[in-house]
Amino acid sequence: MARRININADLGEGFGPYDIGDDAALLDVVRSANIACGMHGGDPSVMRRTVMAAAERGVSIGAHPGYNDLWGFGRRALKMDPQALEHLIAYQIGAAVGIAAYGPQPVTHVKAHGALNNQGCVERPVADAVMRAQATVAPDLIALVMPGTEMQRAAEAAGLPIAREAFADRTYEDDGTLTPRSVPGSVIRDPAVAAARAVEMVREGAIVSRHGTRLEVPFDSLCVHGDEPTAVAVARAVRTALEADGVDVVTLPEMLS
Amino acid sequence: MARRININADLGEGFGPYDIGDDAALLDVVRSANIACGMHGGDPSVMRRTVMAAAERGVSIGAHPGYNDLWGFGRRALKMDPQALEHLIAYQIGAAVGIAAYGPQPVTHVKAHGALNNQGCVERPVADAVMRAQATVAPDLIALVMPGTEMQRAAEAAGLPIAREAFADRTYEDDGTLTPRSVPGSVIRDPAVAAARAVEMVREGAIVSRHGTRLEVPFDSLCVHGDEPTAVAVARAVRTALEADGVDVVTLPEMLS
Amino acid sequence: MARRININADLGEGFGPYDIGDDAALLDVVRSANIACGMHGGDPSVMRRTVMAAAERGVSIGAHPGYNDLWGFGRRALKMDPQALEHLIAYQIGAAVGIAAYGPQPVTHVKAHGALNNQGCVERPVADAVMRAQATVAPDLIALVMPGTEMQRAAEAAGLPIAREAFADRTYEDDGTLTPRSVPGSVIRDPAVAAARAVEMVREGAIVSRHGTRLEVPFDSLCVHGDEPTAVAVARAVRTALEADGVDVVTLPEMLS
Amino acid sequence: MARRININADLGEGFGPYDIGDDAALLDVVRSANIACGMHGGDPSVMRRTVMAAAERGVSIGAHPGYNDLWGFGRRALKMDPQALEHLIAYQIGAAVGIAAYGPQPVTHVKAHGALNNQGCVERPVADAVMRAQATVAPDLIALVMPGTEMQRAAEAAGLPIAREAFADRTYEDDGTLTPRSVPGSVIRDPAVAAARAVEMVREGAIVSRHGTRLEVPFDSLCVHGDEPTAVAVARAVRTALEADGVDVVTLPEMLS
Repeated sequence: MARRININADLGEGFGPYDIGDDAALLDVVRSANIACGMHGGDPSVMRRTVMAAAERGVSIGAHPGYNDLWGFGRRALKMDPQALEHLIAYQIGAAVGIAAYGPQPVTHVKAHGALNNQGCVERPVADAVMRAQATVAPDLIALVMPGTEMQRAAEAAGLPIAREAFADRTYEDDGTLTPRSVPGSVIRDPAVAAARAVEMVREGAIVSRHGTRLEVPFDSLCVHGDEPTAVAVARAVRTALEADGVDVVTLPEMLS
Repeated sequence: MARRININADLGEGFGPYDIGDDAALLDVVRSANIACGMHGGDPSVMRRTVMAAAERGVSIGAHPGYNDLWGFGRRALKMDPQALEHLIAYQIGAAVGIAAYGPQPVTHVKAHGALNNQGCVERPVADAVMRAQATVAPDLIALVMPGTEMQRAAEAAGLPIAREAFADRTYEDDGTLTPRSVPGSVIRDPAVAAARAVEMVREGAIVSRHGTRLEVPFDSLCVHGDEPTAVAVARAVRTALEADGVDVVTLPEMLS
Repeated sequence: MARRININADLGEGFGPYDIGDDAALLDVVRSANIACGMHGGDPSVMRRTVMAAAERGVSIGAHPGYNDLWGFGRRALKMDPQALEHLIAYQIGAAVGIAAYGPQPVTHVKAHGALNNQGCVERPVADAVMRAQATVAPDLIALVMPGTEMQRAAEAAGLPIAREAFADRTYEDDGTLTPRSVPGSVIRDPAVAAARAVEMVREGAIVSRHGTRLEVPFDSLCVHGDEPTAVAVARAVRTALEADGVDVVTLPEMLS
Repeated sequence: MARRININADLGEGFGPYDIGDDAALLDVVRSANIACGMHGGDPSVMRRTVMAAAERGVSIGAHPGYNDLWGFGRRALKMDPQALEHLIAYQIGAAVGIAAYGPQPVTHVKAHGALNNQGCVERPVADAVMRAQATVAPDLIALVMPGTEMQRAAEAAGLPIAREAFADRTYEDDGTLTPRSVPGSVIRDPAVAAARAVEMVREGAIVSRHGTRLEVPFDSLCVHGDEPTAVAVARAVRTALEADGVDVVTLPEMLS
């Protein structure tokens, strides 16, 4: 039986005259793009450009909503009234659907950005705000979540299709949490190391901790990043190694089909 | 045969902690609300609140997109690449549809705001950008336009359902253009005067110029404003006088049905 | 010996087309105005207008810097790098000094806004960022702080002239902290009650807790607010009662002279 | 007698997580940096970083105010009330002075950005707004202007010290205006061509048109750009050629001393 996996990355996070990250390079590696929706980054022109660039490569697209904090790039934790937050997410998903109405492909998933995702993983009201917005505006879209978190539980409660992601360029502790960035080696910058880990995890069908423990956390997608100087090389190595190992790298909808 | 007319106004133009205009008072007068979409004013929370307040009064709702210029409230004329403009409008219509997904009523029209509308009336590329965005994202929505302008022609070219608006609180020249604000009396602040004119125009089924000329410009909706101190009184007087004259004041969808 | 006290309030927090609070009414009550600097509220035009309106009434002016979060009105707690925060404050103080360069009166104090002030009271790095910015850009300005907090200690460490404020419309616990808003009666909305407390506190030369305990916390200024419906009435009553009790209500520079 | 010239460029136009232009490379070429002030680009952290990077290379610094239009990068022409515009500029100059208060060098010039500069060159009220703001907030700073424009005349009327700039990477018509970008060759992308022209112009002490006409327009500074792929190479070639020709490339204050 052919094994398969999705690879996703955050894309389209420019704003006006500003570019950030190497979108073109990452789009050649990933199969699903999380497209910023104009709050923490992105604008309607960048969104449209990214939708088209993804389509040219057969990359599926998702809305990537974040906090309304451009200066902080959505990485500053904010305390928001859950209802205000829910409408903020609904607004962004709707906007992304509007931009995708030009075709040639629809939005097929949603993934929360930065501090919003981090808070949602541990704070259920934040997670519920995200997932209820998605269930209201676009109930057929896949919720792309970290497994074992409040985000997954909220997505389940909202009745959404779910895809679970693991990180190709971060190590894990034995309890399934990410190793803190302060621990040396927690961010994997060596393409060969990242590639070997990705292959191992996909073979196991589970996350493997940095101590070698197999965690019963199956996943559907590997997340790669674009904001480290080494990121694109890491992402390329991960994909190349997976394909060399006989893994099909597919879009999120293909992954869940 | 019962005569009928719609009354519309711009609403939901607050932002974060800021309110502007007397939305509650206007919502008791109008039958259709143009709801700001977060660029020149409005935010997801304000949008949601306005959708609900409109629904409580049976007021139909429209997306009210504008330039991305909060400080200038969308009243500063901007030169934008038509394609960037089109995607800016698509974004805002999509966002409004997203917010309205919570119910209880859908978005049923689109009206451009401020400088965008003014430019669209005379610049066809601007008008086309607005109407193509609407035709792509939400082709069933009514385009609310000033009759005889490029906005009307662009809406026709895009195959959109069209409603035409006249101004209850502004006078017209014999050529169908608005009397410039610099001409004394061009802005009608006397509720009795505005009411009498509105009744006359609806009876005639056409705009009547300040010189008394009947212009062959039929209209479906009267626009009232909320940003003059006298505006709410003018709006109330217009509606009361129309109803006293036997006119049904209806929503835009009812008007076009 | 004539007793005297300052009264201060946050003012000039509009933005573009948006007004907030009743600045004109408050300016007739206070003797020192904390003028927003364009980040959590305010813009160059509003700032200039507020400087002039204050000058017409002999009200002294201060810079009122906040987080760069217009939507959240500077009330959302943010985690910022202390150095980035320090430069954010330096920027705003410089901008206020620039606007005041038109005269007729200079900026004479600085008070931090909202979440920034709240965090600065308990987090020394935040307090240091504010006070170091002030000491660098405008070392002669008075730091207006809550007494007994990290803000006061940081201002002392920075060698700044200090004025201490108490709240006329909030009650205190026996340990000198504000009674949480969740406790009924913690926000004083009855003008007569606020006025009586203000007179008592100024007579005592100290804050008096809601249990009647005299806290050894002398203060130079009473802060009043403009954002509750009852706020202006409370502020007026406080000033009227103080003057009736023979207290001179003076500007911050007069207070410290 | 040693000939000398200044070279200036726009720098520090990043925002939050966003970088734009190759500041480090340009700072090695220019002798004066126009630092964005947070409206069309720039933020307090970027400003501070740019002040320090300039100081390390002995590059003098100027405030570079623009329209409050981050998305449009200050390149969209705006119609603003002249007084609102004047306070917008005063705000930005004050903010830049605030950031420079940390040392080690003061702000020594002001140059308007993008659409603001373009409009100021032909619209006297815009030019007056800029120059009056500068004369009020920082009357000792050098106004860096295009010679023969309303900007120069407004600076003279405001009694400001003036430096005149010519463009190293653009050609001129015989009437002293820039050749429109639509004319092939109007933007000089060949480093050798730009270098030869710069040497010729500095030798002549005047701008030379693309038809070889010597225009009686003396200048103090050559402006280079950072936003074309070829820009840094052009800038480097200009400086190298000038120095090879025996020209001292100096800061603006040195140039005017």
